[in-house]
Amino acid sequence: MAKYLDTIESPADLRRLPQEALSELCDEIRAALINTITVTGGHLGPNLGIVEASVALHYVFDTPHDKVVFDVSHQCYTHKILTGRKRAYLDPSHYGEFTGFTNPGESDYDEFRAGHTSQGVSLAVGLAKARDLLGQSHNVIAVLGDGALSGGEALEGIDNAATLGSNFILLFNDNDMSIAPNSGGIYANLAELRRTKGQAPQNLFRTFGLDYLYVENGNDVHALVDALSAVRDIDHPIVVHMHTRKGKGCEWAEQHPEQAHSVPPATQKDASNKETYQAITRDFLAKKISEDPSVVIVNAGAPSGVGLLPEFRAACGTQFVDTGITEQHAAAFSAGLARGGAKPVFMVMATFLQRSFDQLVQELGLNMCPATVLVFGAGFYDIDATHAGTLDIVMTSNIPGITCLAPATKQEYLAMLEWSIDQDERPVVIRVPERVLEGASGFDAARPTGWHVVQRGTDTVFLSIGSTVNLAHHAADLLQQQTGLKATIVEALNYSSFDEKLLDELVKDHDVVVTLEAGILCGGFGEKVARYYGKTRMRVMCYGGKKEFLDRVPTDEFFAIYHFTPQDIVADLQSMGF
Amino acid sequence: MAKYLDTIESPADLRRLPQEALSELCDEIRAALINTITVTGGHLGPNLGIVEASVALHYVFDTPHDKVVFDVSHQCYTHKILTGRKRAYLDPSHYGEFTGFTNPGESDYDEFRAGHTSQGVSLAVGLAKARDLLGQSHNVIAVLGDGALSGGEALEGIDNAATLGSNFILLFNDNDMSIAPNSGGIYANLAELRRTKGQAPQNLFRTFGLDYLYVENGNDVHALVDALSAVRDIDHPIVVHMHTRKGKGCEWAEQHPEQAHSVPPATQKDASNKETYQAITRDFLAKKISEDPSVVIVNAGAPSGVGLLPEFRAACGTQFVDTGITEQHAAAFSAGLARGGAKPVFMVMATFLQRSFDQLVQELGLNMCPATVLVFGAGFYDIDATHAGTLDIVMTSNIPGITCLAPATKQEYLAMLEWSIDQDERPVVIRVPERVLEGASGFDAARPTGWHVVQRGTDTVFLSIGSTVNLAHHAADLLQQQTGLKATIVEALNYSSFDEKLLDELVKDHDVVVTLEAGILCGGFGEKVARYYGKTRMRVMCYGGKKEFLDRVPTDEFFAIYHFTPQDIVADLQSMGF
Repeated sequence: MAKYLDTIESPADLRRLPQEALSELCDEIRAALINTITVTGGHLGPNLGIVEASVALHYVFDTPHDKVVFDVSHQCYTHKILTGRKRAYLDPSHYGEFTGFTNPGESDYDEFRAGHTSQGVSLAVGLAKARDLLGQSHNVIAVLGDGALSGGEALEGIDNAATLGSNFILLFNDNDMSIAPNSGGIYANLAELRRTKGQAPQNLFRTFGLDYLYVENGNDVHALVDALSAVRDIDHPIVVHMHTRKGKGCEWAEQHPEQAHSVPPATQKDASNKETYQAITRDFLAKKISEDPSVVIVNAGAPSGVGLLPEFRAACGTQFVDTGITEQHAAAFSAGLARGGAKPVFMVMATFLQRSFDQLVQELGLNMCPATVLVFGAGFYDIDATHAGTLDIVMTSNIPGITCLAPATKQEYLAMLEWSIDQDERPVVIRVPERVLEGASGFDAARPTGWHVVQRGTDTVFLSIGSTVNLAHHAADLLQQQTGLKATIVEALNYSSFDEKLLDELVKDHDVVVTLEAGILCGGFGEKVARYYGKTRMRVMCYGGKKEFLDRVPTDEFFAIYHFTPQDIVADLQSMGF
Repeated sequence: MAKYLDTIESPADLRRLPQEALSELCDEIRAALINTITVTGGHLGPNLGIVEASVALHYVFDTPHDKVVFDVSHQCYTHKILTGRKRAYLDPSHYGEFTGFTNPGESDYDEFRAGHTSQGVSLAVGLAKARDLLGQSHNVIAVLGDGALSGGEALEGIDNAATLGSNFILLFNDNDMSIAPNSGGIYANLAELRRTKGQAPQNLFRTFGLDYLYVENGNDVHALVDALSAVRDIDHPIVVHMHTRKGKGCEWAEQHPEQAHSVPPATQKDASNKETYQAITRDFLAKKISEDPSVVIVNAGAPSGVGLLPEFRAACGTQFVDTGITEQHAAAFSAGLARGGAKPVFMVMATFLQRSFDQLVQELGLNMCPATVLVFGAGFYDIDATHAGTLDIVMTSNIPGITCLAPATKQEYLAMLEWSIDQDERPVVIRVPERVLEGASGFDAARPTGWHVVQRGTDTVFLSIGSTVNLAHHAADLLQQQTGLKATIVEALNYSSFDEKLLDELVKDHDVVVTLEAGILCGGFGEKVARYYGKTRMRVMCYGGKKEFLDRVPTDEFFAIYHFTPQDIVADLQSMGF
């Protein structure tokens, strides 16, 4: 069916093709990507843009002896097609066999598991330095793109690449887009470089000390083969700046680069009537923004995951700031906004908040800057291990000064959000739940450290964070069916501090506290409860995630894997004699 | 005594002086700084370089209505002198009244508590954006310097500053030094800008979209007054790049900029015969490096704190890499080195490791890259709150994949270091203790998750991390004196996992476990033990730090403050009937 693609099982097969065949091969790959990703979902736009570069890389370089590091690695589909994994992109039924990112567990052609952006240059500089120390002589190539350049880590890496003094090739994929449209001063320089075909006197890469080569048409495989051949075995660091088209070859994707960045599976497309916290947040903030000019939404280059749609962002005007992929800056910027009297709402995915840890400590916690941080994607989600959001409780609740809130219901979420934005005393993190539950709000703005007693009983306490309150209800019901005893259910609405009065009260007529959290137990909430009761006769059983990286586990299955279903819990209680 | 300085209690007094007086005032301030800091200790070199700029800033701008953000704020001494705190710098006996960094708790002229570098631009961009949202019109000035430019967060901030479209002044203090000599490609561009008096066609700041002004002599107060007057009330972002001399006016400091960066109190100068882990590490690594060309030391722009002296660094040749102030890069670079077959040893202060959290998770933990991370300054130290190292256990031990080791003795440390560098399976964090204790090593390289039973007893277990084993011995002795009972003492040599066999064994003939850790309890080690025993009859009492920021508490006093002395612990045990 596909004349050339059918013959390729590895880059060695590719290298046997005459160069004239490469354009047609690229067409075949592009067609396969469009056919498959529009069904399976995935990173459509970025991968359509980088077909030719991926083919040229494996054609020119002797991979895997020469090392290619993808950053951001969601651009790696053509690379995967060429390195033994094409079935995933030719037949949707095989798509799930591989991750959407590079993974050395899948192939020797993948150097790292890499999902976050902007780290690839640093990793590649490390490979190059190791090569030099060990007296080896292969090429090291970092493929940077899709907005990753604005990340401070990438700039740190580029600054250090200049000091290598040996072979290092940075292939910069400039598609004039991040996940959303680019923002930031450097993008004006990139535009000027594109306009002048790389000849502009001001050149970002040269100011960082790197040599430079411009490729006008980064979707012309022959131009790329020429350029990469010219820099192969080079004896110093160089940037190959190629201009590509995001979504290339798919009209809809070219016209809608943001929507086409990552598309959902075809089967999900119609299931979007369900209420989401993204939409709830948008509606709330739209009103808030119209009422108060000091409210400002901050996002770090990844607006889609947190529901910041293009039309909404446009409607916010100057009250929305996309800082680009810059999580450190975005958190510190939010602190500055708060200190300056504005009311920032930093909306971020839990996995990317990992980049802001020091800023949470220093700029928010130590400085007590009253910013609101809305953490989406925290807990158990069906996602690649690179993007897991299970460390947020560890990251946020152990930092002095930060108030961490976990609503269980929509009503609690809105009450917390309202309170947090308008107070001016402290930084607040709100852990946005996965599922929208309805129910009266137990949040008391006059006592933001207080917890909510949902149901009073005896003997057993179920102490939940966020939407695990559902699990608490089911477990309590099951326990009551089996033993006749009614348990107490408490929502820990604030998971950075304790409702000590309540905890001390519970010890009087309860024997065991069961803590429930959708996150890893190590360093999390349940352990704090265990410590609190450590000296007492109260037993504490903590349910949550193991300290491990799980790859694409269906959300509901986490609870079975972690022995964390109502049945598991009640069985445990009974086996212990409660 | 000091003709002009004596008259100044606030910037208003300064502004009443004729401009001609400013040079003499600067001389007076410089003399005061030299006189005081050489006695008290402190950041000598950086502050001598920025006397004129600090005077010019407060002379030209209407502070605190106009906002000045210091980054790095160890440059703030002259600013403090001019803003009501001069007694600290005129009389050493008052020096301890204020922190060594900006602190809004001390003065309205200080915008933020800021000790880490590279965050000031982002904070200031936040202040500027808040000003714009609120319809205000003051100037916002960020003072960046002393190596902070290489930090990715600073570059993210500069990239975003360009998008403000309103008043923003970045005063860049270029003293051609970081804490140690600068490294990285951008410093070549800065050198070229200095050489051409700002006229070089390649200009880092312009490539980031900022306007630019060069001040050739940043130690000429009149040139600075002119330059700052020219940019005052400017309607767009601009960089004022001034060239200063680190250590200016103190011959020794000018000649020895790295040693003079931060000097110890005069009284400490002769007390340096004590063995330190810095020296132990240096000796070990010197030997290791000479034997194995793949061993490479990595540091992120702060070599002095971890004992990497200039001569030692030079002797390491290509086996030492200073990446500049780039903690994200340094951690990812170490991961790349390890994947490439080298044996990296990343030496870092606990407080700065906070910047590498995501890289610990993704590049080291998820990728299982066998780098060694040596964490210095972890635990209770007499230091500003901005530089506290009490969050390291939270940061490192809760990440999947990372093995965290805590030696108690020198012998254990060396055994762990040897094992870690030569193994190639996993990333290892070693928590370097504060004090050097001698004693046989309980570390078993064949079982790196094992703990060390120092003493077998009954009833009570003291379970220590690192040098708190000393405390365990004292508490055990005291307990034995008072009750006749001999306690068990265990060193948790690995604090990222449990010696479960041992824990299960202990439950048979012990009633209580006392955990001891020099770090905050929240998210730490003791809580994990409390969870482990939560379902059992074993009681657990956790001793460690509160979740709070403490400023300059003498190291030994932490233990009294946190109710964490042998007497406290034994009294608690007795009050509970053990």
